[in-house]
Amino acid sequence: MAALSSLIQPFPSNSISSNTAKTHSSNRLSLNFISLCVTPIRRTRSSRTALKSAAQTGTDSCLVEKSVNTIRFLAVDAVEKANSGHPGLPMGCAPMGHVLFDEVMKYNPKNPYWFNRDRFVLSAGHGCMLHYALLHLSGYDSVKEEDLKSFRQWGSKTPGHPENFVTQGIEVTTGPLGQGIANAVGLALAEKHLASRYNKPGHEIVDHYTYVILGDGCQMEGVSNEACSLAAHWGLGKLIAFYDDNHTSIDGSTDIAFTENVDTRFEGLGWHVIWVKNGNSGYDEIREAIEEARSVKDRPSLIKVTTTIGYGSPNKANSYSAHGSALGAKEVEATRKNLGWAHEAFHVPDDVKKHWSRHISEGKVLENEWNEKFAAYENRYKEDAMELKALISGELPVGWEKALPTYTPETPGDATRNLSQQCLNALAKVLPGLLGGSADLASSNMTLLKMFGDLQKETPEERNIRFGVREHGMGAICNGISHHTKGLIPYCATFFVFTDYMRPAMRLAALSESRVIYVMTHDSIGLGEDGPTHQPVEHIASFRAMPNILMLRPADGNETAGAYRVAILNTKRPSVLALSRQKLPNLNWTGIEKVEKGGYILSDNSSNNKPDVILIGTGSELEIAVKAGDELRKEGKAVRVVSFVSWELFDEQSDEYKESVLPSGVTARVSIEAGSTFGWEKMVGRKGKAIGIDRFGASAPAGKIYKEFGLTVDAVVEAAEVVCQG
Amino acid sequence: MAALSSLIQPFPSNSISSNTAKTHSSNRLSLNFISLCVTPIRRTRSSRTALKSAAQTGTDSCLVEKSVNTIRFLAVDAVEKANSGHPGLPMGCAPMGHVLFDEVMKYNPKNPYWFNRDRFVLSAGHGCMLHYALLHLSGYDSVKEEDLKSFRQWGSKTPGHPENFVTQGIEVTTGPLGQGIANAVGLALAEKHLASRYNKPGHEIVDHYTYVILGDGCQMEGVSNEACSLAAHWGLGKLIAFYDDNHTSIDGSTDIAFTENVDTRFEGLGWHVIWVKNGNSGYDEIREAIEEARSVKDRPSLIKVTTTIGYGSPNKANSYSAHGSALGAKEVEATRKNLGWAHEAFHVPDDVKKHWSRHISEGKVLENEWNEKFAAYENRYKEDAMELKALISGELPVGWEKALPTYTPETPGDATRNLSQQCLNALAKVLPGLLGGSADLASSNMTLLKMFGDLQKETPEERNIRFGVREHGMGAICNGISHHTKGLIPYCATFFVFTDYMRPAMRLAALSESRVIYVMTHDSIGLGEDGPTHQPVEHIASFRAMPNILMLRPADGNETAGAYRVAILNTKRPSVLALSRQKLPNLNWTGIEKVEKGGYILSDNSSNNKPDVILIGTGSELEIAVKAGDELRKEGKAVRVVSFVSWELFDEQSDEYKESVLPSGVTARVSIEAGSTFGWEKMVGRKGKAIGIDRFGASAPAGKIYKEFGLTVDAVVEAAEVVCQG
Repeated sequence: MAALSSLIQPFPSNSISSNTAKTHSSNRLSLNFISLCVTPIRRTRSSRTALKSAAQTGTDSCLVEKSVNTIRFLAVDAVEKANSGHPGLPMGCAPMGHVLFDEVMKYNPKNPYWFNRDRFVLSAGHGCMLHYALLHLSGYDSVKEEDLKSFRQWGSKTPGHPENFVTQGIEVTTGPLGQGIANAVGLALAEKHLASRYNKPGHEIVDHYTYVILGDGCQMEGVSNEACSLAAHWGLGKLIAFYDDNHTSIDGSTDIAFTENVDTRFEGLGWHVIWVKNGNSGYDEIREAIEEARSVKDRPSLIKVTTTIGYGSPNKANSYSAHGSALGAKEVEATRKNLGWAHEAFHVPDDVKKHWSRHISEGKVLENEWNEKFAAYENRYKEDAMELKALISGELPVGWEKALPTYTPETPGDATRNLSQQCLNALAKVLPGLLGGSADLASSNMTLLKMFGDLQKETPEERNIRFGVREHGMGAICNGISHHTKGLIPYCATFFVFTDYMRPAMRLAALSESRVIYVMTHDSIGLGEDGPTHQPVEHIASFRAMPNILMLRPADGNETAGAYRVAILNTKRPSVLALSRQKLPNLNWTGIEKVEKGGYILSDNSSNNKPDVILIGTGSELEIAVKAGDELRKEGKAVRVVSFVSWELFDEQSDEYKESVLPSGVTARVSIEAGSTFGWEKMVGRKGKAIGIDRFGASAPAGKIYKEFGLTVDAVVEAAEVVCQG
Repeated sequence: MAALSSLIQPFPSNSISSNTAKTHSSNRLSLNFISLCVTPIRRTRSSRTALKSAAQTGTDSCLVEKSVNTIRFLAVDAVEKANSGHPGLPMGCAPMGHVLFDEVMKYNPKNPYWFNRDRFVLSAGHGCMLHYALLHLSGYDSVKEEDLKSFRQWGSKTPGHPENFVTQGIEVTTGPLGQGIANAVGLALAEKHLASRYNKPGHEIVDHYTYVILGDGCQMEGVSNEACSLAAHWGLGKLIAFYDDNHTSIDGSTDIAFTENVDTRFEGLGWHVIWVKNGNSGYDEIREAIEEARSVKDRPSLIKVTTTIGYGSPNKANSYSAHGSALGAKEVEATRKNLGWAHEAFHVPDDVKKHWSRHISEGKVLENEWNEKFAAYENRYKEDAMELKALISGELPVGWEKALPTYTPETPGDATRNLSQQCLNALAKVLPGLLGGSADLASSNMTLLKMFGDLQKETPEERNIRFGVREHGMGAICNGISHHTKGLIPYCATFFVFTDYMRPAMRLAALSESRVIYVMTHDSIGLGEDGPTHQPVEHIASFRAMPNILMLRPADGNETAGAYRVAILNTKRPSVLALSRQKLPNLNWTGIEKVEKGGYILSDNSSNNKPDVILIGTGSELEIAVKAGDELRKEGKAVRVVSFVSWELFDEQSDEYKESVLPSGVTARVSIEAGSTFGWEKMVGRKGKAIGIDRFGASAPAGKIYKEFGLTVDAVVEAAEVVCQG
C-alpha cells in the first residue's frame, strides 16, 4: 500500500480548471481522493430498513471510495484491453452503482434467477462495463476475471452491450437507447401485478424494487417518454430511475441538442423527482435520495444524479472523448495517478474483495428467508402458491391447448381479428400468465379479455393493459414483462402497419428471446378506406427477414388458434400474428396442429406428388387460392393448394417434408399474398408467379382495392394457366 | 330560412346532462346555438395585424357559427356518405379550423404552392374531413363538392388520411400519429433557416407561420416529444400548435392511459403554453390565444384547446363512438336538429359561401404583394434572389454533378462513411439546399459539413443540424424540411440498425415522395464489437421490400459518389445509403454513372454472355466477390463479377440490360452480402447460392465475425465451385 499512498494527492487545482473550463458544469469535477475517504461504509443492507449514513454505521472510511475506484478501473482496464468500449459512463456512475449493488439491492449472486430479487437495468447499455464490474464484485459466476479480460471478444460472456441471453445477472438486453428504461417499466409493472394477485396479508411474496440507470440519450428517445408516462399512470412506486445527468453525449455537450428541463417534464409525467447534485462523491446524497424515493409509494421516482463522464481522467473527463473509446495507455496511466490507483490492470484490492464477498452469504440468506416465507405462504394458500410457482418456472398447465377453439367450414366466417379474440379469451382462462392489451385500439384489435378488468393503478391485479397510443413503449414494456417471470406471456396489439413504430422493441424481443405475442390486425389493403398510411405492404417481408421471430398469417379460425398454439409453445422467440379486419370463411382442411409445420397441403387432386400447378396462399388470400384451385380443377387440372402460414416454421421442417409440399420437380407455382412479393421467388421460383402488392395501397373500400390491384381469383387462374404452359 | 329558424332552439338541459355524465369533463359540452351567435365575424385578416375580437370588427353575428357548422356538417355528411371516416375531430375542431383558415392564415387558394403561405398540418390526420372542408370553403380547386362526395373512394382527391401527393393544399401526409407535429417542426425550421439566410433588412421575403392541430394520440407518441423538444431548443417562435384536448381516444376516455400533465411537460420542453378552456364556442379565446402565441417570438407555443369530440351530436358527443365511424343516419338527423342545421347533405349556405369567397381575391392580393416584395428584393440582392428562386423551383445548379469526387484504384482505401463525408462536403458547396445532420453520431456517421457551423437557435442560417438522440423525430423533421421547399435536400444520419427507430418517418418519406437522404453508417457486422444490438441484419431486405425508396449500398468511393448522385436526382423518392464503418479498397471499374443502373458488370473474363459463374456482391462484400473472382479465374474459370448497389434501380432497367448482366442461361450464381439472404433467391435462383447472415450478429472484432460467419473469399470460391457443378 506504500505505492498507493505515495500516489494519493489532492487534485492539482490548475488541472481541474483547464479540464473543466469547456462546459458550464465545471464545478461538477471536484476530484479529491483524500477528502472522499471520510465517507465510511455501511455494513448491512435491507430494502426494508432505512439507509443509514456512514457516520451512523461507522466503519472503514476509505473502503467505499476504494470500491468505487475498483469499479472504475475494471471498466477502464477492460475497455483498454479490448481497445473498444465506453469507459466514460462507468467512471461517472460507479458511485451510484456501488451504493446500489453494495448497500441497497437484494439479490443472490449464486442464483441470478432468484425470483424475488431486485431488478437492475442499465438502460444506457453502452456503459455495460459498470454492470459487469458490479456483477463481478458481487460474486456472480457469469463474470469472472477472465470474462472481464475478454470483454467484447468472440464468444465471451461480456459482449459490447448487456445481453440477457449471454450473461446471467443481466435482466434485459439494452444498448439501443431508451429501451432499458421502458423494459424497467415492464419489470416494475409485472412486480406490481403479481404482488397484487398473489400477496396476502402478512405474506408479501412478491416484493422487490426495479432500479434503472439511464442517460441523456435515453432521455432524448421518445420511447422513454412513452413508457415513463405510463409508469406514472400506473403508479409504479417501486420503480426508481437514476438519470445520469452528465451533460455529455457523443456529439459533445448536450447543450447542442438537449436543453429542455427534464425535471419539469418528469413532474409533468407524474414522477417524483430528486436531484443529487454531486453524483461523483456525494454518497450520502445518493443514499438519501434512494431513501426518499422509496418513501414515495404512489409513483415512480427519478433521481437525477449529476455526474462527470469519465470522472478521474485528467484530460478526458467531462468530454465526449471519454464516452465511446478506450482512454489510451497514456491517459489510463494519468487517470491511475490522478485517482491514486497504483494497482495493475484488473486488480481488485483484497479489502474490497473481502468486503464484497459477504454478498454471497447474504444473498443466500435473503433467498433462504424468502423460501421460508414462501413455504408458509404455500402452507396457507396452496392454490395461489402452486399457480405462482408455475408462473415462476414457466411450466404450462396440463392440457391448456384443449382450450383453443376449433372451427369447421360450417362455422360462419369471421375476421381473424375476431377469431383471435376468441383464442385470447379462451387462453386467458387456462393460462394465468397471459395478459396484455392494445395501443388504444382494443376495440379494433379485439384484444379485450372479457373476464378481466383493466390493469390500472388501483386495480393492478387485472389483465387488460391500456397502453395508450404508444406502440413503441408498449413493445418495450412487454419485453420487460416477459423477462420478469418465465410464465408471464404478454401480448400487445396495434394495426400491423404500426409495427414500424415498435420495431426496435420487436427486434430486441427477437434478439433477447422474449415470448411476446404481437396481435397485429388490419394486416393488408383489406382494411380499406383508411388508405396507404394504414395499409401494410412490406411488413410481412420485413419480419420474414428478421432473425428469431415467427411471422404468422393465419387464414381462418383453425389457423388462428394454431398460430396462438405456436406462439405459446415457442418460449424463446416472439410471434407476430397478422390478422384481417375483413371477414374470412372457415376453410376445409385447415387445422390447429397443421400450423406448426408452417406450410402444408390444404387440398390436392394430383397423384404421385406431381400436381400440374401449386397454388400458395397466406392469410386472407388463401381463400382466393382455394377458389382459384376449384376453378382450375373444373378445367381438369391437378391442383395443389398450399397454406403458407409461417415461412420460418416451414424452413425448419425436414427436406423430405418440404419436398412433399413443394416438390422441386413442379415449377408451375403461383402465390398470392396481399403484401410485397419480395422474397416470394424462393417459393415460386423463376418460372412461377408471385401475385402481391409492390406499391403503396389506396384509400377505397377493400373489395375495390383488391380488384384494382389484381388480387382476384381470375388473376390466380390466369397466372396458373401461364405458368403451366411455361 | 324558415326551416332553419324553426330548428334553432336551446339545447335541452336534460339531454346535456344525460350525455355528458360519463366523463369528468361534462362542463365542456355546453351547446347553445343562439347564444353563440353573439360572436360576430372578422372581415380582414393579416398575420401582421392584431386579431381583433368580433365586437371590434362588428359584422354578421351568426356567420361564424354558421360557417363552423358548415364545416361540421361537410365532415359529418362526407363520412356518412362514405360510411367510413372520423367525424368526431372535425366537429370538435371546426371552431379553431374556422378561425385559422378564415381569419388568420395567409394563403392563396388558386396557388396552393405559393411559397410564402402559412403552413397548416393536421397531425391528427384521421380528422382530414376538417381540412378538406376548409380547403373547399377557402376555394381550393383540389376539393370541389364532388370530391367531398367521393371521400375515401377509389381515385378520389379526398383519401382517408391527408396525402400531400394527392390533394393540393395538403402540405404533408399524416395519419400515423405524431408524424404531423414533427413534420411541422421541420416546416418551421425550414422557414427559420431560409428566413435567416435570405431575408435582408426591410426585405422579409421568407416570413410565414406554421400551424398544427394535434390530438391526444399525437401527444402520447414519443416522436412528438422528440420533435417538440427540438422545436423549443431551436426557438421556433413561428410554430403554433393547437392541442385538441378532447379527453377521448379510441379506447374511451384518455383517463385510462393518459393522465400526465401535458402543460407541465411542454413547459419542461421549453414551450409557451396557453389554455383555451372553451374550444367549442370560445372564438375570442381562440383569437386571443393565437395573438398571444404570435407575441412570443423566442419559442413555439402550444395552445391547449379543450373541445368536445363530436360536438353537436346529442348521443355520441364526448364519446369514443364519435371518433372513428359514421354517426349513422338517425344520429346525423339528431345532430342536424340539435345544431339547427336544416340543410341537405353537403350544403354550403349562400352567405357562408359568399363570406369565404373573398379568400380567392385576398389570396391573389397576398401573393401579388409578395411578388412585388420579391421583385424589390431581387433588384437589390440579385444573387440571393436567384439562389432562393432556384430553391423554390427545385432546379439544380448547372454542372453540380462535377463536384462529386472521383476515385481510382490507387486512391487509398477508406470507409464508405468517410467517402460519404467527402461527397456531402463537396455537394454542400454547389447545392445550396443541402443541409442535415445526425442523431448524435455526427463524428461516427461522418456527416459534418466542414464549411458550416451548427444550425442553432441563434445561428439558424447554418446547415449542420444537431438532432440529438432522436432518430424518429429526425426523420419526421426531415420530411417537413423536404416538403417545405422543393430545393431543400435534407439528409439525416444514424447507425443503419437504428433505421428501426425512424422507420415510420422513412415510410412516410417514401409514400409522400420526400427526397430525404438517409446516411446510414455501420451497415453490418463490420462494425464489430458493439454487437448484435448495433449490427443490422434484416435491414437491407426490409428496405428493398418497401415501395418507392431506394436502398443503396455502395462498395467504394465511386459508388458512394454515384449513390449521392442518384439520391439527388431522384426528387420524388428517398434514398437510404448503407455505409461501412470499416475501410474498403477503391475497386477497379466502379464508376459514378454506373450506379444509376443499380447492378452492373464490374469485371468479366467470359465471352458471349456465358460466364461459368456470376459472383454478385454489394457494399463491403463486393471486395470479397472480386477477390474470389480472381481466385476462380486462376483456376481457369470464366467469371463475371457484378456489383449490385441498388436492386430497385436494376429492376427499372430494360429486360435486355438485365439479361446482359444476369443472363437467364447462367444459373451458377453466388451472392455475398453481410445481411439477411431473404430475397436473394430472386438474383441467384434455386441453383445458386446466397451467402449472407440469417441470424443475429455478435460482439467481437469485425474480422473475427466475418470469418466465423463464413463471409470470406474461401466461402465464395467454394460455393462457386459447388454451383458450377450443380
